Amino acid sequence: MTPELQETEKENVPIEQIIKKGVDVICGKWRLIIIHLLRDKTLRYGEIKRAIPGISEKVLVHELKQLVELGMVDKQSFGEVPPRVEYRLNEKGHTVLPVIDVLSQVGRVFM
Amino acid sequence: MTPELQETEKENVPIEQIIKKGVDVICGKWRLIIIHLLRDKTLRYGEIKRAIPGISEKVLVHELKQLVELGMVDKQSFGEVPPRVEYRLNEKGHTVLPVIDVLSQVGRVFM
Repeated sequence: MTPELQETEKENVPIEQIIKKGVDVICGKWRLIIIHLLRDKTLRYGEIKRAIPGISEKVLVHELKQLVELGMVDKQSFGEVPPRVEYRLNEKGHTVLPVIDVLSQVGRVFM
Repeated sequence: MTPELQETEKENVPIEQIIKKGVDVICGKWRLIIIHLLRDKTLRYGEIKRAIPGISEKVLVHELKQLVELGMVDKQSFGEVPPRVEYRLNEKGHTVLPVIDVLSQVGRVFM
């Protein structure tokens, strides 16, 4: 399939499906909080953990894995002792930032 | 409490809590689909139901109730036989529309 064809197909997708996909990508109790944290800096696992006191180890590991699988976050492991793992919001992940900005306005209205 | 005080309090709310509130308001499988439907027109219950073939009666009734309780949608019942019930996105509900617009862009990227 050529990239052009993919693009055409995307154009024909009903808006309801596009909204649903967007909801899948951003919804979740912690997802946008983590993306917001990574907005302008690369962080180590422990730094993310400390910045979100309410999150459990298990959930944070799962969330980070999902963000990597969705292609929004790059994970880099360094061969060091103790092990160092860093997370960075990549180009695709940056497309979500405008959602956080408008959603914060909504949050303020409904607070 | 004066409106000014409320405003000051909102200003001091940590961004994480504001994002969480925004997520609470917009997340859910059908919520934004319904809001998008009501974007520029008042609709009767049956019209909404027909426009979203995938939704069950129970879930749609629950979702509409939530939207009314959140203060985003106004419900008007007319004393007619058969009963007529109409739903309209109000001013507060309209604050969510920019989220749908940027979220659609995200949906397209991740499609």
